[in-house]
Amino acid sequence: MARQERAIRTRRAVIEGAAGVFAERGYAAATMAEILERAGVTKGALYFHFDSKEALARGVIDAQVDPARWAPRDLRLQEWVDVGMTLAHRIPRDVILLAGIRLSADMQGRARFGSAWPAWSGLIAKLVTEAKERGEALPHVNPEETAQCFVGAWIGTQTMSEVESGWKDLHQRISVLYNHVLPAIATPAALIRLDTAPDRGARVLAELDEETDRPFVSAGT
Amino acid sequence: MARQERAIRTRRAVIEGAAGVFAERGYAAATMAEILERAGVTKGALYFHFDSKEALARGVIDAQVDPARWAPRDLRLQEWVDVGMTLAHRIPRDVILLAGIRLSADMQGRARFGSAWPAWSGLIAKLVTEAKERGEALPHVNPEETAQCFVGAWIGTQTMSEVESGWKDLHQRISVLYNHVLPAIATPAALIRLDTAPDRGARVLAELDEETDRPFVSAGT
Repeated sequence: MARQERAIRTRRAVIEGAAGVFAERGYAAATMAEILERAGVTKGALYFHFDSKEALARGVIDAQVDPARWAPRDLRLQEWVDVGMTLAHRIPRDVILLAGIRLSADMQGRARFGSAWPAWSGLIAKLVTEAKERGEALPHVNPEETAQCFVGAWIGTQTMSEVESGWKDLHQRISVLYNHVLPAIATPAALIRLDTAPDRGARVLAELDEETDRPFVSAGT
Repeated sequence: MARQERAIRTRRAVIEGAAGVFAERGYAAATMAEILERAGVTKGALYFHFDSKEALARGVIDAQVDPARWAPRDLRLQEWVDVGMTLAHRIPRDVILLAGIRLSADMQGRARFGSAWPAWSGLIAKLVTEAKERGEALPHVNPEETAQCFVGAWIGTQTMSEVESGWKDLHQRISVLYNHVLPAIATPAALIRLDTAPDRGARVLAELDEETDRPFVSAGT
């Protein structure tokens, strides 16, 4: 294995190990010793990539917004739907996302290591801006406002789904959320072409999996 | 003062005292001694109304959905807007609501004392059902689904506003949320008559205050 490839794998193992510990214990109770053990790498290898627990938390948060999880579509609004629906499908299965949720909800910690919210809202604002330029979104739409509104709505929907069903109904709830928000955003000609069905996320991920042969990071492994 | 009126005032003082302590310390760290001191009532008076800390938490949660804070309107959808906009205006100022947010976010505690979510979503489902019956809402609308979607969105919007501005921009964010959701719900004839301006909550509360001469419970007192 080439040195660079090995470094990428080590970094990934460290991120996954740290995510597992953060997801279970939260930031404050997580120790470098447990993260080391979970990652199965040497202390030297871990510190080569991340020099502190804070840096690890930032690494886990940065790993959340992963463009390999959706694909370019004819409609930018469909890409926005795919971002949210694949995320909804992945959350109960993906330890990096579960860790990110716990870290982002840590009001003390986030002052030090931030949260994934700005990255998600920046991505959505970009997609909605492009949708406007291409005539998919209505002229009055303010992409920044829509992005902030949607990320806020997403966070609360995720919280409710966690409490009510342990995320089992998250894909249904996010589908309902898109159906409530898109009529205020999309032109009728775009609206009719959008696929917001509850199983959209699962289908997009299956399609990407076939293409890339890259399995998910499972919370169970 | 008649005995019944005195009992109502005592109960109110206890709820407000408990809310203040829950809002600051959370459920687990709150003590009956501190609640007693904050409420300024006798131990006998407190236990006459609430026989445990758990019962107090339920009392605070039940006090959140207070129909005296909005008024009947020609359009049921306007009542729904008023419920959300008055809540957005009151949150930074109202210790009972701040306590309710903290209690509802307490994943351990909520198994024992519940949360205000079912009451809010029940209220919204009722208003949306009536709106459908009166032709204000579109025929495909599922009131229960819309209520769940909105409460989820509301919770996350509130969380984001707390983190980003200490709730200073909550009325603006909730106004934006209604503007994103109502086009999927309201008939055009109802939509054009709805007032979702950011200052809607402040105006409704000022109007009710004039009518009832009943001041808000302030978080600062």
